[in-house]
Formats: sequence, structure tokens, C-alpha cells
Amino acid sequence: MTDLLIRDCQVLQIAARTPQAVVLHEQDIVIHGNRIQLIQPTNLADPSHFRQVIEAHGMLAMPGLINTHAHVPMVLWRGLAEDVSIDRWFNDYIWQLEGNLKPDDVYWGTLLGQIEMIEGGVTSVADHYFHMNLAAQAVERVGTRALLGWAMFGSQGVEAIEQAAEFVRRWQGVANGRIRTCIAPHAPYTCDDDFLRASAEQAEKLGVGLHIHAAENMEQTRVSLEKRGLTPIQVLEQTGILNLPTIVAHACGAHPDDIEILSQHRVGIAHAPKTYLKLAMDIAPVLDFRRAGIAVGLATDGAVSNNTLDIWESLRLIALMQKDRANSAEVMTIPEALYIATRDSARVFGLDGELGTIEPGCLADIILVDLDGVHHQPLHSVEATLVYNTRASDVQTVIVDGKLIMRDRHLLTIDKLEVTRHAQTNMERLARRQADRRIQTYNL
Amino acid sequence: MTDLLIRDCQVLQIAARTPQAVVLHEQDIVIHGNRIQLIQPTNLADPSHFRQVIEAHGMLAMPGLINTHAHVPMVLWRGLAEDVSIDRWFNDYIWQLEGNLKPDDVYWGTLLGQIEMIEGGVTSVADHYFHMNLAAQAVERVGTRALLGWAMFGSQGVEAIEQAAEFVRRWQGVANGRIRTCIAPHAPYTCDDDFLRASAEQAEKLGVGLHIHAAENMEQTRVSLEKRGLTPIQVLEQTGILNLPTIVAHACGAHPDDIEILSQHRVGIAHAPKTYLKLAMDIAPVLDFRRAGIAVGLATDGAVSNNTLDIWESLRLIALMQKDRANSAEVMTIPEALYIATRDSARVFGLDGELGTIEPGCLADIILVDLDGVHHQPLHSVEATLVYNTRASDVQTVIVDGKLIMRDRHLLTIDKLEVTRHAQTNMERLARRQADRRIQTYNL
Repeated sequence: MTDLLIRDCQVLQIAARTPQAVVLHEQDIVIHGNRIQLIQPTNLADPSHFRQVIEAHGMLAMPGLINTHAHVPMVLWRGLAEDVSIDRWFNDYIWQLEGNLKPDDVYWGTLLGQIEMIEGGVTSVADHYFHMNLAAQAVERVGTRALLGWAMFGSQGVEAIEQAAEFVRRWQGVANGRIRTCIAPHAPYTCDDDFLRASAEQAEKLGVGLHIHAAENMEQTRVSLEKRGLTPIQVLEQTGILNLPTIVAHACGAHPDDIEILSQHRVGIAHAPKTYLKLAMDIAPVLDFRRAGIAVGLATDGAVSNNTLDIWESLRLIALMQKDRANSAEVMTIPEALYIATRDSARVFGLDGELGTIEPGCLADIILVDLDGVHHQPLHSVEATLVYNTRASDVQTVIVDGKLIMRDRHLLTIDKLEVTRHAQTNMERLARRQADRRIQTYNL
Repeated sequence: MTDLLIRDCQVLQIAARTPQAVVLHEQDIVIHGNRIQLIQPTNLADPSHFRQVIEAHGMLAMPGLINTHAHVPMVLWRGLAEDVSIDRWFNDYIWQLEGNLKPDDVYWGTLLGQIEMIEGGVTSVADHYFHMNLAAQAVERVGTRALLGWAMFGSQGVEAIEQAAEFVRRWQGVANGRIRTCIAPHAPYTCDDDFLRASAEQAEKLGVGLHIHAAENMEQTRVSLEKRGLTPIQVLEQTGILNLPTIVAHACGAHPDDIEILSQHRVGIAHAPKTYLKLAMDIAPVLDFRRAGIAVGLATDGAVSNNTLDIWESLRLIALMQKDRANSAEVMTIPEALYIATRDSARVFGLDGELGTIEPGCLADIILVDLDGVHHQPLHSVEATLVYNTRASDVQTVIVDGKLIMRDRHLLTIDKLEVTRHAQTNMERLARRQADRRIQTYNL
């Protein structure tokens, strides 16, 4: 018996090098264990040879979406920091609200955010937050894939790095490899060079990568240059961070020299355009990154800036905003945007060639999207509708690591009501802003 | 017997002048005929005195959304003109594709677009297209509200104006007033001054307003100034268009002097930001318009640029893009964006104080939105979630002119399958691009 047959679907295929998208029709996808075994025309396989069969006529199968930078438990505060500058957003809101955080909140917040992501077809997330042992427990339970990094500020001292290392040792590769880990210093503006250097050394020792915010806007780059003659990206290079596989969140303030540096290292850029617009930050030069061969992945960032964890929105906005910035409707074409959403996001996530494509041998993280809705009709172009029309609510079925975790929009691994009730019960406690409990200061 | 009771809902209230949003809890809305009679705390009304009762516990009631500028039947071509400049978009795609248009396509295309809008909570649309007698029949059937203008090019001569006038005489006020009409010359770059003047005179004679594209981008303004020493807005002023209530679509290329002119006339600006980004046009100076007291309404434009008719996306993008352009996260606040989406869009639509607010005496165009979805939870701010989290698929129930037209996402006035099948049947014929059938040329 083979494990799973997805019967009679369309399959989105994204070419490995030049961005090019093709849709195959009337296909079966054969899954064995946690991997894709075969894609073949419908009716060659005998459904009775499979433990489980999903009839997927009219559905599009595509790689599960990858969120390359988030702070998932921050869904607990969404809607609480609105219409404020980035300084106030940090100092008057986020870092005061986070003073209320208990380890248990990370568990329930992760579950809540994971449910939102599953319902929107996001099967993998690179999450950067606190108390990540509890995030890992939530991911283990819910059945998705995650790259988890325990966020650290320089002010916490080397004990924080030791704690993060212990987390890595405990959780790396757990849950059949669905959980991977990394070392996650917060940013060059909250970690001094010694701390960054120690983080890189620890990551190297552990054999994992890093995940860090850097050059979030031009102002950070300007101030860094003024204060120390180095851009934030140069700081990452000099402290050894870039010697290891690293996710750099945002890089909206990347200097042309930085792009040269980034292109020479195994760096992936996480791109979260809704946050950049909402906080009136700069928009990262994605076209320049890609010309330089740097991997770019879609991201949401946390839900206190975004205010959702919806990767479809990020996909739409990367296309729209790159056209806007280039003053050309001809750039960031549909195939290129889909390439970023799939293969390139997998590269940023550190699973290049394993995720982000539906091919024999790849990990079986697959979503089925219903394109029958009137907002897609008539369906002249599947590719166009994926970038410009598809909503999270069009995702019907989600498979991660070969296992069904949502079917026809019913969650199979978690009780949604229990999780939302838990979040609602704790709303009031979590929403109290208290200046004396602020966990950090944003002061470039 | 009173007609309709919406029981135990939350009600979004937007203040009439300063943008300010409040949510009332546990309210009943009493509707008689096509108007709102009363909003009062739940349990004061006896449900047995009503012909129809909608239990709306947990739902938010808000004014039906208004799409102040669209070309609804263009849904028939969505996804066919991608990643091209505005010149090629017109000359190589749209105006060739429109050579295939038959009157019947307008009927079925309007129905298809109307279904998409109803499902997304859009109850009114200002539609600017061809064969509008068939659009009117579709609107009459489906039960929504529309302001319809028969699009005209100067090259069609005065017969086009006469045909449009006949349409106005036939359809103005039909369907209990749900259908209103206007005169709709295409744009200053496709209509000469005599044609614009004749259009304005005809509108005045008929006692209706106008709906026109103008200053769609800076380039149009620049070329107009170069060729004739007038901006497109000044052309509208000089030809008498602005002496009548007029919807100006886009005005992204509005000059500071234009803003002064617009503020002195009964002009509403229709704002369709997704189109502007997708075609790499300029973003209209909405903050300047509003400072000058000019009404701004949300719009989608046609689905060959947008590619949907989703006003929630326009709402999100007006907020995000105005922050981006102003380099300030503090502008276009949530209450201001909601004000534009409701009261100000009603003003652009020509029904100021009648639509866009839930108050006794207003027309009963109301939608019920489900904010229980995980992507809204925990719900710290209803206002924030409406701007940044809500999807078209969250709209559950739609009432127009006092009548239920969608209930719990089931359409009550139209067979969705019949309409989508019709569109699918005609896809191939409509998608053929033929240079020799091009209906116009974009050549500033």
C-alpha cells in the first residue's frame, strides 16, 4: 500500500532556473511516507492501492507556502499598535506589551497563528521569537514545518546564547525533521559586535544557521554608517554572521555595496511588504537582490505590524510594489513572483530543492487551492489568478510532510475553538501597556 | 408588520464629520420598506412583529460597500493583460479584446461581476461601460444598486451622446431607484472639447451627473499641458463638465492647481490603488484631496487591471499607499480609511447621507461581516481588523434596498452556476486579440 493519492488535480510547476510557470492538467500526485513519489496523468494509478485518496478534481495543487520571517505568537496583540511611527511602535507599544508575555502565551499564540497560516496554505514558517521551546511544542502538535530561532538581545548577555543553544540541541530535527532550529540574535542595533560574534560561533558549533533583522530601513543604515562607518550588513559580515546560512529579515535599507556582500554569502532575504507600507518604511530593492543572485522569500513579519499572517497578501504586494518602485509594469512578472513564493522561499528557508516544488523526491508539503470561486472566473490564467486574485480562504486542503492537516477547510490536528477561546481569555492581561515593563528600547 | 429585523448584531458607526469610528454592541436594526427605521438595543423589539428576522449574533453590521468606479463586464477578460505598460495594456490588449464585445456579453459580464461584488459586500457600483441597457437589466435582476454611464469616445460623434441620453431617459430611477444613470464620456484624451461640452450640456438637460476618466497619471497631465497649455482637469472645467456632479476616475496626475479647481466643484474622486500599482501609474494625492475638502471614494477599476472587484483590497491599499507616499505611518488612519470607505464613497456616488451610514432614514444597504475567523482573533480592534484583516469571504449576508440578496453566503437572486458557465462558454471567443478590430488607440 502506498500512503496517499491526490487524484485528478491540476499541478503548478515552476521551472528551476528561469522563472516560468506551467500548469499540468488531470494529474495524480502519489505520496509515500513524507515524500512525493510520482506525478502522473490521472487514471494510471489504482486508488485501491492507497491508504488514503483525495479526490481533487478542479483543484490546483501547489507547494505549501513558506513564511520566511514571522513572530507568530504576536497574533495575540494584533490591532493594538495602529497608525504609529516605527519608534513609537517599538517603544510605546510592542516592547511594553511584550513585558506581559508568559511562556504559556507563546504556546497558545503559536497555535493560533499556526491555525491562521494553515487555513491560508502556509505550511512552513521561519519563526523568530521568545520561549521557543513552547513554540516547538505547538508546531509538533499542529503538524506543520518550522525553522525556530530563540530571539536574543545583546543586553541579555551570553546566558541567552547558551539558552538558545540548549533549545537547538533539544529540538533540531525533531518531529521527523519538521522542526529545525537556528540562532536568532535580534538585530545589529540591539546586539553589540561581541554578542553577534558569539552568536555566529555558537551557530557554527551547533551546525545550524542564523536568523536576524538587519537594515530594516534606510535610517538604520544611515545611523550605522554615521556612528561606526559600517552598514548593518557590513556589521553582519565582520562579526561572522554571514559565514553561515542566514535569513536576513527586511534589508530594506540595503546599500549597493551591501548587495555585493550579500551575494557572496549564503544569505536569504525575508521580504514582508505589508509591514513596510504600514510602518512607512522603505521597500527593499528586490529586483537588485535578484539580479545579484540573492535568494528572496515571502514573509509576513508579526501580526502587530502586518496584521495577518497571510502570504497571499505578501505575494500580491511584492509584485505590486516592485512595479511601483521601478516605475514599470513589466518587472516582477507573474512567473517571477510565483518563483519567489515557491522555490526561492524554499531556498531562504534552507530547504532548496526539497520544498517549494512538486517533484518526485521532494518533501510532500502540498496545498490544494479551489479556483472555482467567482472572483477567479472566467479563469483565463491560473498563474495570474494565483498572484492577483487568490485569497487565503480559497485554500481547501493542506498536506505537510505527507500528512493531511486540513481537509476541505476542516482542521484535523487541532481544536480551533479551544485555541481562540484561550486567546480571548488572555486578551485583557496581554493588552496592558506598562512603560516600566518595557523589554527593550528602540534608539538608533 | 415591519419588514425586517437584524437581531443582536454589532453596528459600525462612522461620525459624519471628523473621521471617528465606534462599534455599538448588542443592537437591533429595524428595516421598513427600503429604509432603516431604527437602531436600538437588542430585546426591545418583538421578533414576531417582523416579516423576516435575521439572527446576527457575533456579526458586525456595516454599510454596504460602494465601488465608485468600475467597468464591471471586463471581468470577462481578467488575467489576459498582465505585466504590460499602460500603452500596451490599451493598444495591444484591452482595445483589441473589446472588439469582440457583443451586447449580450455585457449582460452576462455584469451578472458575473455583480456576483463577485455581492459576495464581497459591495452593494453599489458606479459602472462605466458599453451597452449599458444590458447592464441595467442585469442590475435590475440581481437586486443591487448602480449608477450606470454609457461610455463614449469622441470618435463616435454626437450619435453616441444621443444614445446615452436615451439610456438615461429609459433607466433613470428604475427598480425603486436602485438604478441611477449618468453621462460618461471616456476621457479628455479620447474626447475633444466639443464632445465634452456636448456631453455636459446633455447631462444638464437630463438632470444627471457625469462620470469620466481624467489625469490618470502624471504623463497625461504633462502631455496635456505641453500640447494645449491646460491640465486634463482644466479641460474638464473649461468644457463645463465640472459644473455638474461628476465622478473623476483616478486623478493620479492632479496638479496642485487642479486640486484648487476640484475643491470648488461637486466632484468626487474614484480611487483604485491596485490598478495604479499594477500598471505602475502614479498614486493619487488623496491626503491633499481630503485637505481640500474633495470627496474620495474607493474603487476597483476594471478586473483586467485590478484583477478583482474587491473593495476590501482597495480599502487596505488606500491606507498602506498613502502612508507610503507620505513617508508617515501616522496618516490615513483607520478611522479616516473607514470614513472614505463608507460616508465619503457615498458622497462620490451621489447619495451622501442616504448611503454609507447606518442611521434611521437611510437606505437599507447593509452587510453583515463575520469577524470570528482566526485571522481576526483575538479581536482587540474591530476598526483595525476591517481595514487590515477582513477578506471578501468574511461577508456573510447582504441587504440592498431593504431586501436580502445574500444570506449566509447563499445568493438569493441569481443562479451562480448559470452565470459562471455562461462566462466559461464564451471565454475563447472573447480572448482573441485582433489588431484590426481595435476600438480605440491610446496615443497621448
